[in-house]
Amino acid sequence: MRHSFLRTVVVLILATAALPLRAADPLPSWNEGAAKRSVLDFVARVTREGTKDYVPPAERIAVFDNDGTLWCENPVPFQLAFALDSLKKKVAESPELKDDPAVKAALAGDVPALVEDHYKNLLRVVALTHSGMTTEAFDAEVHDWIRTARHPRFDRPYSECIYQPMLEVLTYLRAQGFKTYIVSGGGADFMRVWSEGVYGIPPEQVVGSYSRVKFEWRGDKPVLVKTLESLYVDDKEGKPPAIHEFIGRRPVMCFGNSDGDKAMLEYTTVGNPRPSFGLIVHHTDAEREYAYDAKPKSSGKLVEALADAPKRSWTVVRMKDDWKEVFPPAKESK
Amino acid sequence: MRHSFLRTVVVLILATAALPLRAADPLPSWNEGAAKRSVLDFVARVTREGTKDYVPPAERIAVFDNDGTLWCENPVPFQLAFALDSLKKKVAESPELKDDPAVKAALAGDVPALVEDHYKNLLRVVALTHSGMTTEAFDAEVHDWIRTARHPRFDRPYSECIYQPMLEVLTYLRAQGFKTYIVSGGGADFMRVWSEGVYGIPPEQVVGSYSRVKFEWRGDKPVLVKTLESLYVDDKEGKPPAIHEFIGRRPVMCFGNSDGDKAMLEYTTVGNPRPSFGLIVHHTDAEREYAYDAKPKSSGKLVEALADAPKRSWTVVRMKDDWKEVFPPAKESK
Repeated sequence: MRHSFLRTVVVLILATAALPLRAADPLPSWNEGAAKRSVLDFVARVTREGTKDYVPPAERIAVFDNDGTLWCENPVPFQLAFALDSLKKKVAESPELKDDPAVKAALAGDVPALVEDHYKNLLRVVALTHSGMTTEAFDAEVHDWIRTARHPRFDRPYSECIYQPMLEVLTYLRAQGFKTYIVSGGGADFMRVWSEGVYGIPPEQVVGSYSRVKFEWRGDKPVLVKTLESLYVDDKEGKPPAIHEFIGRRPVMCFGNSDGDKAMLEYTTVGNPRPSFGLIVHHTDAEREYAYDAKPKSSGKLVEALADAPKRSWTVVRMKDDWKEVFPPAKESK
Repeated sequence: MRHSFLRTVVVLILATAALPLRAADPLPSWNEGAAKRSVLDFVARVTREGTKDYVPPAERIAVFDNDGTLWCENPVPFQLAFALDSLKKKVAESPELKDDPAVKAALAGDVPALVEDHYKNLLRVVALTHSGMTTEAFDAEVHDWIRTARHPRFDRPYSECIYQPMLEVLTYLRAQGFKTYIVSGGGADFMRVWSEGVYGIPPEQVVGSYSRVKFEWRGDKPVLVKTLESLYVDDKEGKPPAIHEFIGRRPVMCFGNSDGDKAMLEYTTVGNPRPSFGLIVHHTDAEREYAYDAKPKSSGKLVEALADAPKRSWTVVRMKDDWKEVFPPAKESK
């Protein structure tokens, strides 16, 4: 009897403690509307135990594209900005690099040439600036860059040009037992340096483009040296295989913003035995961010996935209308 | 005041509930001795907050080889037993396969030919029996096999020929905030089907050998089809790169049993800025399991890693002496 009383006390305390959390809006930077409601409704539906739509926590996998979905991809994809800064240093050290067509395009600031053929030259520049050093040296370089470089238009660190509404989705999903993954065409090694601090996504939940590292000894210590071998581009039809390779489970939620995300949206939502959810961020806000779809100035072409959205029941977020805020409040300046 | 009283009650209840857990031996199947003590001491050392050796939970990555470390690898590696069963079906369907040297070796039961050159023919057989079908069809085949096939000597399912003392280590580490990973030469797709049920290790924490899957449509549904392309053998010097690729963090604990694990033991423990721990399971128990090192009948050659153990301060488990039990109690028979 006494035991039962104590239990009741405990239950009451816990219930009271939980109340304010329940009442708060988990997505305060979203305007009320169909997009916001679709996220909340789906999560409520699949987390309600004892129903046919219930998805056990182990299977609550949510995948997010990065460029244009979690952070901005203009005026150039941010990893390209990093690569350009890094490339300038490399070329000073190895002048023969100047004859490489990708390097020429990069140094000339020829963005269309860099992003054409689905980022071929861009990825070559990335590879050139991302190999030959140990993983530790590369991490240090990225860390230094992300700490110091600033976005040319928004004049804040690139790591703060992230979408506040999407941060709220990440936090909300994790609170509801989801594992949040990045599945991006960007380099895994590049993103893993800052993904935990910026998005709360640990390195092991970052899937990206990658090339081999090589185990070798330098003096009496083993190191991993980045190479250009076996480059895997985690984009378009490459995304579902990467999800399989790295996660080994089919996601139930997928967030993207371009035709590069179409295949993983399909893999997530078409024929999935579990309930599933797809969302496309449509950049419609030239004033607060950028407006683009069919003819982006940088990356992020969005035509086919947008056309398929209605028949696939994918949510389309219209940035201008659906987001109350775009970026998080600025931190104190440098 | 009332609130403070309730808090006290809650704290007392929680404390009382936790006591029996604290007092229990987390490794009851280990005999008292240096091996058991080394595991407990290391974990205690790195989980004590406010000390220089403290490792934050996010960095508590522990990697485990599978064959010979978590489960038995005799008389043949279990995935080979699966592949042989599967191969018989394939050859009946496609008789031209009989001319393949790997298939010949497999059907002749020529184990040395299969495992020579670090499993080359074995992996070829694996590839042959592991491609052309969708990932879903393959999963179903593995699931069926693991449910029905039995170990020839122990007459129990292969999934019960696992080491009880290592299961306890897995459970203990997870309770102490570690993420436990498999890093094995075995096929990732093969292990992921049963790793969660057998070891409590979810698919996304299974790193293994793999080859590409291909995204394609079959009718109105997207599928992933297993191919033989880009086979990556996650063994020896391939293990640290795979750890980097899949986990993106350097482990602090590493468990292996053969020279195939030497590189990942080194990567974990040599020059790691964090405290680190390496352990080798030495198979010394012909009576309860098997005894082998320099000349294994199947896989699991252990010479170099064993020789290096003293200078690297790796714990060496002598199965016969250090383990009170080898396998978990038998479940009810078929």
